[in-house]
Amino acid sequence: MVTRAGRNRSPRDDARSIFLHAVRAVSPYESVLSHLKVLPSGILRAGKKRYNLNRYERIFVVGGGKAVCAMAEAVESVLGARITDGVVVTAYGHSARLSKIKVLEAGHPVPDGNGVRGAREVMRVADRAGRRDLVISLISGGASALLAAPAKGIRLGDLKRITALLLKSGADIHEINAVRKHLSRIKGGWLARRVYPADLLSLIISDVVGDDPGTIASGPTSPDPTVFEDCLGILKRYGLLERAPRAVVERFREAGACEETPKPGDPCLRNVNNVLVATNLDALKAAKVKARSLGYRTVVLTSTMSGPARRAAAFFSSIVKEVKKSGNPLGPPACIIAGGETTVRVVGRGRGGRNQEFALAAAVEIAGQSGVTLLAAGTDGIDGPTDAAGAIADASTVDRALSMGLDPMNHLERNDSYTFFDHLGDLLRTGPTGTNVMDMVVALVV
Amino acid sequence: MVTRAGRNRSPRDDARSIFLHAVRAVSPYESVLSHLKVLPSGILRAGKKRYNLNRYERIFVVGGGKAVCAMAEAVESVLGARITDGVVVTAYGHSARLSKIKVLEAGHPVPDGNGVRGAREVMRVADRAGRRDLVISLISGGASALLAAPAKGIRLGDLKRITALLLKSGADIHEINAVRKHLSRIKGGWLARRVYPADLLSLIISDVVGDDPGTIASGPTSPDPTVFEDCLGILKRYGLLERAPRAVVERFREAGACEETPKPGDPCLRNVNNVLVATNLDALKAAKVKARSLGYRTVVLTSTMSGPARRAAAFFSSIVKEVKKSGNPLGPPACIIAGGETTVRVVGRGRGGRNQEFALAAAVEIAGQSGVTLLAAGTDGIDGPTDAAGAIADASTVDRALSMGLDPMNHLERNDSYTFFDHLGDLLRTGPTGTNVMDMVVALVV
Repeated sequence: MVTRAGRNRSPRDDARSIFLHAVRAVSPYESVLSHLKVLPSGILRAGKKRYNLNRYERIFVVGGGKAVCAMAEAVESVLGARITDGVVVTAYGHSARLSKIKVLEAGHPVPDGNGVRGAREVMRVADRAGRRDLVISLISGGASALLAAPAKGIRLGDLKRITALLLKSGADIHEINAVRKHLSRIKGGWLARRVYPADLLSLIISDVVGDDPGTIASGPTSPDPTVFEDCLGILKRYGLLERAPRAVVERFREAGACEETPKPGDPCLRNVNNVLVATNLDALKAAKVKARSLGYRTVVLTSTMSGPARRAAAFFSSIVKEVKKSGNPLGPPACIIAGGETTVRVVGRGRGGRNQEFALAAAVEIAGQSGVTLLAAGTDGIDGPTDAAGAIADASTVDRALSMGLDPMNHLERNDSYTFFDHLGDLLRTGPTGTNVMDMVVALVV
Repeated sequence: MVTRAGRNRSPRDDARSIFLHAVRAVSPYESVLSHLKVLPSGILRAGKKRYNLNRYERIFVVGGGKAVCAMAEAVESVLGARITDGVVVTAYGHSARLSKIKVLEAGHPVPDGNGVRGAREVMRVADRAGRRDLVISLISGGASALLAAPAKGIRLGDLKRITALLLKSGADIHEINAVRKHLSRIKGGWLARRVYPADLLSLIISDVVGDDPGTIASGPTSPDPTVFEDCLGILKRYGLLERAPRAVVERFREAGACEETPKPGDPCLRNVNNVLVATNLDALKAAKVKARSLGYRTVVLTSTMSGPARRAAAFFSSIVKEVKKSGNPLGPPACIIAGGETTVRVVGRGRGGRNQEFALAAAVEIAGQSGVTLLAAGTDGIDGPTDAAGAIADASTVDRALSMGLDPMNHLERNDSYTFFDHLGDLLRTGPTGTNVMDMVVALVV
């Protein structure tokens, strides 16, 4: 047990406060604010670039995502009346009142007609921006569904169907994105192309492993190296040529050069500045600061954890156990932090999420390892289709469960981690946090 | 005097009826109708191409011009309920009620805000069309002003100013068009690019000498060989770099490759079929048929007459006089026909038009040449800023004028042909004809 300044705290409390501190550090409002500075001279500093605001006739704001309203609020608080016009699209129930920027709501994660209308308004603003204007684009998780702009001859239903087919087929995110980019008027760099020749400052909250702006929301402001032929290859690879909507296959087969997404090196993307305002690593670094302030020796292992939750949990647990066993990579009191996004292949009919499954798999690994506590949670506060952000496990979790008649392995096999932790009272419930930089694991060894 | 079938007709009557017959032959409604044939099998024949209507999911109609309503009526009469949607923009007071196609009115010859709105609706329809759709575009004189779609960062006022500057500078139509195309979202092939990958059938009434679809209305459905650098060169050549709107010069200097107009060979223009449904030559050929039926030996000299009206009149008169003198190129009763568009450099304060000025200059040339009658008129029925289509002159015109105290040379020098012919009662008044394939001259020698 770590104590500091005379207060008694449990490792569970510490893990919780480390996680919550990390989440606050990547809040959309704060993240945007900390990346935008207006100097008294009228210079806007954003990322590595400077924008002379006196040079611009108009400033437009566009965007999409579940966190886009808070991002837009931050932009309004920095630029206020300098903003000419703007429109952002967020998920139902996620809107806030803004002064200059219009907020529209649309369907998520399944896109709907309001997303199509919202995307149209975003494109209209992008179309207005000329060479003396600045466009600020705000992108956060969910933007891909919320900004639904089917390409010519493609219907929203076609988009939904091909996405569903690909998700079931085992195609990876890059394959799915290549297809999405080639069926859109916004993704794959098209939004940036529309904004050209205006300057484009794209503020992005990353919800993908690796933080590639071309992957987040299928890269509306990034060049796309993939081509129509790749898309056709992907459909072939997963045996979808027959089942894919006819309009999709026809587009991939017959598209002309002018329909190809903007490529790396495209001179019409040279005015783009993609700035990652919040990433998983930012959250992990904030967690590290907090853990240190609580007296832990702290290490951030990785922000690109991926693969099946159970395998990641096993590997992560092996490191935690090494701390206890040999003091490597550092000795107790220690805090081991990792982030990323794992996957769960659902076979059972239980309830859960990838973080709860991670915690359950880890609970088995660390059973009896006294002094070890582990928290796994989604930074958005929503783990899978549950009301929990994640769960907390420790050395005693398995014993306590067994004494209550809960079989950890059985719950794991049925993907029923939610029921397991709910009975134990070990779910972490934060409510939606308003941001999303994927998942975090915090392990404490005392 | 030519008589036929017992009827007594003056050469004036004949000239008038030859002209009116020619104008009717190039009426927008008839011209479109005669170029569109739907076969019982569902095949649409247009120009040299065939369109299998069973293949198309949707058929859209877009267009602009003073004659566009009658063109659209013809398309509706051929395709009826097969038309999905459409919008055409015509000049104030020129609209007609259509079933499926929406009609908007806008400013002409000076574009206005309604033209901008109309162009936006036309672009919206073009944007909807996909690879299983057919778009029929209808273009006639005036479309350039009526479909006003300033490029990014360019305002309508910028367009008006640079056009006015160029018109006064002495730049030719190709130079003016190069500039217009590079300041538009529709001209210079952009409309065709937007329609891609849908099939595009563009039905065009030509109001330019040479009938180049890339020149008519600044070629919305034709590739553009000119580039931004050419535009900058044109501004330099006419000393307009300083006086041109700043946004225009900036665009020409800094535009990116993605803003360049579609070029010849652009694969995304391969679905375009430009069909000239009515040209000056079509009118001249119809005139020839009519003149022959009235008993005249007839020759069509040229459909590309251009240059100053007075010089053209002198050259044309020399041919007419040769008929009388030596029977070359053919002997009386003869009909000599020419067409095109001449110019008038206005220096005086009189009233007139290029056709009336042509007739006045010719009147001086043919004075005393008994048996010679000449009609010069605009096929649109509107010659310059007057209520006349043109005028009729003959061997006695100068004598009759002098006896009334009218000095032909004085009127010519003051560009006052309207007053001259009005006093003589020799104006040709047809009212607006609803079409425009430039001007015609019909000379009869009996």
